[in-house]
Amino acid sequence: MKENNKWEIISHSLEPSQLMVDETLFHTANGYLGVRGNFEEGYVDQYDTIRGAYINGFYDISEVKHGEKLYGFTESKQKIINITDVQGIQLFIAGDRFSLFEGETLAYKRTLDMQAGVVKRHIEWKSPKGHILEIDILRMASFVKPELFLIDYTIKSINYEGEIVLVSTQIGEVSNYFNPNDPRVAAEAEKHLTVTQIRREADIDLVYSETNASNLKVTSAVKHVVSTRCHIESTSDKSSLTSKIKFNIKLGATERLIKYCIFTDSIRYSDCNQSALCSMYEVTEMPIQKLYESQQAYLDSFWKVADVVIEGDETLQQGIHFSVFQLLQSVGKDKYSNIAAKGLSGEGYEGHYFWDTEIYMLPFFVLTDQKIAEGLLSYRYEKLDEARKNARIMGHQKGALYPWRTISGSECSAYFPSGSAQYHINADIAYMFVQHYLVTKNVDFVINKSAEVLFETARLWMDTGHYIEDTFRIDAVTGPDEYTCLVNNNYYTNVMAKYNLKWAVKFYEVVKKYGDITHLSQSIGLTEEEVSTWEEAYQKMYLVYDEKLDINPQDDTFFSKARWDFSNTPKENYPLLLHYHPLHIYRYQVCKQADTVLAHFLLEDEQKLSTIQNSFEYYEKITTHDSSLSTCIFSIMAARLGDTHKAYDYFMQTTRLDLDNTHHNTKDGLHTANMGGTYMGMVYGFAGLRIKETGIYFNPIIPEQWDNYEFKICYQNRMIKVHMSKERCIFELSQGEALIIDVWGNKYQLIDTIIIDLDKRKESENA
Amino acid sequence: MKENNKWEIISHSLEPSQLMVDETLFHTANGYLGVRGNFEEGYVDQYDTIRGAYINGFYDISEVKHGEKLYGFTESKQKIINITDVQGIQLFIAGDRFSLFEGETLAYKRTLDMQAGVVKRHIEWKSPKGHILEIDILRMASFVKPELFLIDYTIKSINYEGEIVLVSTQIGEVSNYFNPNDPRVAAEAEKHLTVTQIRREADIDLVYSETNASNLKVTSAVKHVVSTRCHIESTSDKSSLTSKIKFNIKLGATERLIKYCIFTDSIRYSDCNQSALCSMYEVTEMPIQKLYESQQAYLDSFWKVADVVIEGDETLQQGIHFSVFQLLQSVGKDKYSNIAAKGLSGEGYEGHYFWDTEIYMLPFFVLTDQKIAEGLLSYRYEKLDEARKNARIMGHQKGALYPWRTISGSECSAYFPSGSAQYHINADIAYMFVQHYLVTKNVDFVINKSAEVLFETARLWMDTGHYIEDTFRIDAVTGPDEYTCLVNNNYYTNVMAKYNLKWAVKFYEVVKKYGDITHLSQSIGLTEEEVSTWEEAYQKMYLVYDEKLDINPQDDTFFSKARWDFSNTPKENYPLLLHYHPLHIYRYQVCKQADTVLAHFLLEDEQKLSTIQNSFEYYEKITTHDSSLSTCIFSIMAARLGDTHKAYDYFMQTTRLDLDNTHHNTKDGLHTANMGGTYMGMVYGFAGLRIKETGIYFNPIIPEQWDNYEFKICYQNRMIKVHMSKERCIFELSQGEALIIDVWGNKYQLIDTIIIDLDKRKESENA
Repeated sequence: MKENNKWEIISHSLEPSQLMVDETLFHTANGYLGVRGNFEEGYVDQYDTIRGAYINGFYDISEVKHGEKLYGFTESKQKIINITDVQGIQLFIAGDRFSLFEGETLAYKRTLDMQAGVVKRHIEWKSPKGHILEIDILRMASFVKPELFLIDYTIKSINYEGEIVLVSTQIGEVSNYFNPNDPRVAAEAEKHLTVTQIRREADIDLVYSETNASNLKVTSAVKHVVSTRCHIESTSDKSSLTSKIKFNIKLGATERLIKYCIFTDSIRYSDCNQSALCSMYEVTEMPIQKLYESQQAYLDSFWKVADVVIEGDETLQQGIHFSVFQLLQSVGKDKYSNIAAKGLSGEGYEGHYFWDTEIYMLPFFVLTDQKIAEGLLSYRYEKLDEARKNARIMGHQKGALYPWRTISGSECSAYFPSGSAQYHINADIAYMFVQHYLVTKNVDFVINKSAEVLFETARLWMDTGHYIEDTFRIDAVTGPDEYTCLVNNNYYTNVMAKYNLKWAVKFYEVVKKYGDITHLSQSIGLTEEEVSTWEEAYQKMYLVYDEKLDINPQDDTFFSKARWDFSNTPKENYPLLLHYHPLHIYRYQVCKQADTVLAHFLLEDEQKLSTIQNSFEYYEKITTHDSSLSTCIFSIMAARLGDTHKAYDYFMQTTRLDLDNTHHNTKDGLHTANMGGTYMGMVYGFAGLRIKETGIYFNPIIPEQWDNYEFKICYQNRMIKVHMSKERCIFELSQGEALIIDVWGNKYQLIDTIIIDLDKRKESENA
Repeated sequence: MKENNKWEIISHSLEPSQLMVDETLFHTANGYLGVRGNFEEGYVDQYDTIRGAYINGFYDISEVKHGEKLYGFTESKQKIINITDVQGIQLFIAGDRFSLFEGETLAYKRTLDMQAGVVKRHIEWKSPKGHILEIDILRMASFVKPELFLIDYTIKSINYEGEIVLVSTQIGEVSNYFNPNDPRVAAEAEKHLTVTQIRREADIDLVYSETNASNLKVTSAVKHVVSTRCHIESTSDKSSLTSKIKFNIKLGATERLIKYCIFTDSIRYSDCNQSALCSMYEVTEMPIQKLYESQQAYLDSFWKVADVVIEGDETLQQGIHFSVFQLLQSVGKDKYSNIAAKGLSGEGYEGHYFWDTEIYMLPFFVLTDQKIAEGLLSYRYEKLDEARKNARIMGHQKGALYPWRTISGSECSAYFPSGSAQYHINADIAYMFVQHYLVTKNVDFVINKSAEVLFETARLWMDTGHYIEDTFRIDAVTGPDEYTCLVNNNYYTNVMAKYNLKWAVKFYEVVKKYGDITHLSQSIGLTEEEVSTWEEAYQKMYLVYDEKLDINPQDDTFFSKARWDFSNTPKENYPLLLHYHPLHIYRYQVCKQADTVLAHFLLEDEQKLSTIQNSFEYYEKITTHDSSLSTCIFSIMAARLGDTHKAYDYFMQTTRLDLDNTHHNTKDGLHTANMGGTYMGMVYGFAGLRIKETGIYFNPIIPEQWDNYEFKICYQNRMIKVHMSKERCIFELSQGEALIIDVWGNKYQLIDTIIIDLDKRKESENA
């Protein structure tokens, strides 16, 4: 159970069945480095653990095996790897080893403090011999110094006087978690990291390791600082270092061990051994309090912009804070990394980056931290060459096709029907480049990066599609809904491709006007004629529509299939993908997640309101939400369609998905996209935000359960604060020049503050 | 080059590039045992070989690996394994080792004698030291004693007198061939067979082996019989036995070694060790001439029925003999085995049984040897329980789904879109049970076997399909054409399923009338109501049809796809499956093989002639024939549509596919289905045979290249000989009671002989 505290996630009890889930929920990360919330002292043998630490974008290469390997099938994949284990600290008191599974736990509290950016454990423990200690363990992954993770271990003696022994370890022999029967995690045990050297330089313990196939290096460094006079006995073997720290504790006294851990890797550092040492010197030279203060200051400024406040529902407020905080913990802040499907909280989906980044997580960063957003987009720009190569493998003469899942840029999907066939990722990425432009009006970014990405993705659609009956069609792709694969004219894909093509043309004009179109065109062999083919294709894009039902079918033949027999599907058979052969699932009208409904959210102007409404109702009945990317979209669309009650229900399912482990696999890591979905649910759903070429729009509603809500967004060098209560809606321009905003269909000039009374709005609706 | 000799395949030269192909073409098999045509003395190191011997249906189990394993994916598969290598015989003369790659080859001739059922090698060789020998090596796999393979090795000295040493080996340490980049052969090296014991019992050398995963046993026994006094030195190690045979040869004299090899396995023999010994005693007790005579007698009676004679084209005649002979070499004649895609000639497709058996090879046996035909059908009946289990894995509540590829009955397909998704195999099997009934009118067989197979396959269709707009639809399956996967209402599948359902109803009536329907119904829980649902479904089966074009599209959306750009596809990019990602191929109108055209051949009465004609022309333009199952069907349909010229061209491509290695992979084994296709091309194509509920029909044509052709078929306890020349067509009832036959639309009573003059026929056409 997690206590309702809006800034903290608190666990008061130790439930064995919850151990692995808590490892995820209480993980400590800063976008570069992530350490799962394993106990320093470990569990007892009968309890499973996924003990791990990860660096974003740091991977090894694994062979991909196929029972039947056809042309172009992925032969190898990157995977995030578990790095040196620095978490171990054993405490011995009078011969008893501290363990929560022995002796007596008098008090237990674990806290994720989202304002301070630390995870704390407070324990009062009576040893088998009856000695009582208060143990406080704080963990932090520094946002300011990303290579730093630290464990601040404090011991207070209640009734004991004598020797305490702390045995702190740094273990280089690590491996990844695997489960052969779950397609969502790695299937086979494999060793990825080999220790090349163990060193001790002054009082710093160093482990140098190298990945087995990708030839990357990682260095970990550990330094122990103890509050009292102590004796340290250091030993090592081929792959690990152990420090046995002995000191005496007085009755009632408090002693403290700070374990500083530095991780550097050869992707970012030309000499990661030297860099690790320098970083260690730097962080240990300053008082630790400064490190905590800098963390606090970083988070203060983060929350100042990013906070989404809800009054009237503490549980929900907590869930929203958790979501937003986890986005920050997960996001890579350099061009070498992105946001993995599980952030840095676990090994699910092998640390790969998916479309999740663009469609679910980038919206948050684009609206709150454009530097991070541009970093994420730049990552895609940097991988354009890899995407071009991928397009060739998939049989395309021209253009770039982004891989469905990747770390370093090449395709890592081993099952193409619900992997590489999801060509929509190309349009998803393009969509977010456009959104970034609409939010920032950053023309330089378009010239330097976005345009080329849009051009190459547009080209891919031209090479994929074809004309029939004067409409442009796209065959043999898979839409977002992975329960229906390899279809023709998936509505989502086609409408997104249309937008991709349309904006490729627009960006061409932008570069022509403000940049050097000749240079760019020459470098990729582009002509005006080719651009005009994009224009024609987007104008003639075929969007499947059922006139009788006034619904967009998911694809050409979706409506001719039988509906899934939900009434005869036992509850334990969900998620369907773990209980039915994919071919069986493909045969029915059943959706894993929002597909057409998502398309209607992203591009609402493509359809009439009635079509959007009818589609929502139709798909709602056949969607299992087996994907964690689904309920947030249904919440947003319910809000937009005016069903506040339903929007609220879907939103509740969204915000607490991991906190309540509703998908039963939080142990493998957080559903990070769903965290982004929570943010979107608030901003795009309840507040009804739209950012279009024609301006910025709001359409706020408020569920009856809440008193009010409030958030800020950055828009074209401005900061706009939105406050919505049951009585009124207030827009405040906290920064930047006046602008026109559209609220409920009315234009307002926002100079300082606009207050719109809901009563008056109702009156005007009645009029 | 193969010499044109209608009963022999002859090779006169040793071309290194042809070595592995010749291993296939000159393999020796009898349906139980197959030994590739490897040289006893081996090659030199630089030349690759697939050295192997196989027992039909004798398999090990291999893990199937998936990069991403979804529910129901095949976890293990059977594969045919290479068994003890008994082929080795080294010859030493005055210190020189006989090898065709050293010394001087004065004459070389290898012959497959299809009348005698033996493969012979005749060599005149001058050793480096100048000694000349004539060596004649004969190999036979006995049809009469299937566990026997023998090598009859004769040496004639031309200019040498002195010691000859023969070193004969039996090697238990064997492994299978693999190629990680070709989906048509095994991808990984794996050891499957372990020698458990080596024994020598009197003069018989025995190797006992066991498979590693399937726990099957195989025993091989070798005995050497030498024509002259000799000294035999026997040695052995953990897994092999060697006999060093020394004797003196006189100038001009001939000496001979007969190497008898027996193979017995634990699938067929309760004590395969003892059985091997007994068999060896039995075969070595009789003079070898008797063995040759019995082989000859077996083949004489085979050819008496099975021969298809063409006069006027020796090359073609040779090709037809080769095809028919290979069908006999390949076919399993007990209920434990069937016909592997490569027969017993190689390891391609891992020894699996496919729909090839029913649709391509069984027609030959049904018309010429009903005992063998019933054995093949019985194999499917025996695997019904496995097929039921497979249906459950694939999500079906009821019915049986035969696996796409298997040996022991469970699914071995590792890539379901072009594997398990080919549900049509169910209807293919049902179709052949029906054809067998129409040819034999064997009601007992229907009662005991066919009915249950038809019922369970019919049930599967009911569980797979559904009604929309009062038509019965089948979604998410793959038709025969593997270049288009996972489609709705594949015409072939639907029309074959219709036939399956229709005949399930008919067989229900047969059993009701002649058998114990209550017993059968109870044993599988069948009711009359359920049978009536089959009736409704077949009557309402949806068969996709394009009215404007008067063509059956291959599936619901086939015609909306772009056509493959054949003009820009370089020749070396065929077969497409080895040069393009499957997703790319799926996107286009391009066919690997006959699909709708095949459906029109099997069930011509379902469509108008114009539709069949238009479809043929349409699909012909987009079919690559990358599958070896294709040209034979196009030949048959061209013949039926009256285009003799085209029928002939396709037929020529069919008959010599392996002899001329036109698919470039004959090294991996014969395209056995194509052998059946050759037979069908003659009988169903040129002779226009149809066997329907309403009787037997002929519509013979003859290409201008031929003088005449002739064959016999067994039909309802009769034997009918068909002779067609440019002048007349003669039907002769060689056995059985008079019957009505239909020739060119006219009914004739065939009592003894009917002679139909072609001139008169033309006159009546003109009239």
